[in-house]
Amino acid sequence: MRRLELIAVEGLPEVRPGDDLSRMISEHAALQAGDVVVVAQKVVSKAEGRLVELSHVKAGDEAVRISARLIAKPDPRMVQVVLDESVRVLRSDRVLITETRHGYVCANSGVDHSNVGGADLVTLLPLDPDASAERLRSGLRELTGAEVGVIVSDTFGRPWRLGIVNVALGLAGLPALLDLRGTNDDAGLPLHATVLAIADDIAASAGLAMGKTARTPAVVVRGLALQGAGSGRDLIRPADEDLFR
Amino acid sequence: MRRLELIAVEGLPEVRPGDDLSRMISEHAALQAGDVVVVAQKVVSKAEGRLVELSHVKAGDEAVRISARLIAKPDPRMVQVVLDESVRVLRSDRVLITETRHGYVCANSGVDHSNVGGADLVTLLPLDPDASAERLRSGLRELTGAEVGVIVSDTFGRPWRLGIVNVALGLAGLPALLDLRGTNDDAGLPLHATVLAIADDIAASAGLAMGKTARTPAVVVRGLALQGAGSGRDLIRPADEDLFR
Repeated sequence: MRRLELIAVEGLPEVRPGDDLSRMISEHAALQAGDVVVVAQKVVSKAEGRLVELSHVKAGDEAVRISARLIAKPDPRMVQVVLDESVRVLRSDRVLITETRHGYVCANSGVDHSNVGGADLVTLLPLDPDASAERLRSGLRELTGAEVGVIVSDTFGRPWRLGIVNVALGLAGLPALLDLRGTNDDAGLPLHATVLAIADDIAASAGLAMGKTARTPAVVVRGLALQGAGSGRDLIRPADEDLFR
Repeated sequence: MRRLELIAVEGLPEVRPGDDLSRMISEHAALQAGDVVVVAQKVVSKAEGRLVELSHVKAGDEAVRISARLIAKPDPRMVQVVLDESVRVLRSDRVLITETRHGYVCANSGVDHSNVGGADLVTLLPLDPDASAERLRSGLRELTGAEVGVIVSDTFGRPWRLGIVNVALGLAGLPALLDLRGTNDDAGLPLHATVLAIADDIAASAGLAMGKTARTPAVVVRGLALQGAGSGRDLIRPADEDLFR
């Protein structure tokens, strides 16, 4: 019987800029070849020093105007950081939805101040989440000898559905999509429109074991038996295919 | 260490209208109290007889026009069925995106003809996926004595991201959302915007064990320890909160 496991990596200390996250994970998980390690963006950003002190930020007029229109009435300096991380604002009424420089469409450009350790500090998304995943993957290989896949995940909202779900920002050592077009269903008929966002399904599954706060920032997904390799960019819909551009 | 399991329910025979799906699942899985059983919409629809023979459908002018504009050039009678299941068409150029009578926004109103057993047959979504989940849940309780949660899942596309992911259409015996607003993060600061779509994360995790075709239409998710109960409707964003209406 096909059986997969989701194993929370528990007991990690608070992550600080410059920390060796591969080492921290390897010391708290017994990794095996073929495992996929899902790591929350927040701790990756912290380890990479992707932090901004709001006291060093000056909010511009647009940030002040937008802040007043948002339900949460965030610090206008936080809004300034969000704008600095974005290439396009999709919505700035009640909630702030942007497209980041990477191409993700999400709330607040992924900038966040929960679980950062101080009211004045916010985290930015990693500059290149695929590169972050690859560094973790090679670090884990070096430390444990195990060839694993790595996903850097974050929680995103969705337009037509409520609640946030875990998605894959960047990845290394596994495919992002599983393209089943050209294969047949059980009756021998071709399967249509079946490109599975497998890395997003994996990130979502890890969300179940990550728990509610930041105490479990990494989860090992065991039993997937995936082949090939992809990129977080594979999951970003090109502008010309997008329903809303 | 927190550990969850995803157990594929394998060996189910082909599901036909009128089949007792609870019995079929109970005979192929050793269920325990607290398990969440994720069942693919396709087999629920088949068991409930939510099938349409295209030879009984007459395509109207709009269906013929739309079919010609779609990449897949589907049978216009299939498009007619999609329109009959919808309350609104969001896009009918290259792909057909609709809002179903339930309120889901998805491709082709969830109408599908793969894994149905004949080129002339298509499946419709269950009339009331929450009721479908509740019937499965009470059937499983009666047959096994185990109090389980049930999710009826389907695969949906997303506007800004490529690939399809498993989501929860209907559910019984578990919450749809986990509302963490009002709780604090590890540093004692309030968690913002953290309503987790836990049922969608569970559905996505089950997608990992469902495999590529219809041979594994059910997956047991073990170890969640969820409390409360919700509805698939909890996951549908109200029209007045929607970015694109």
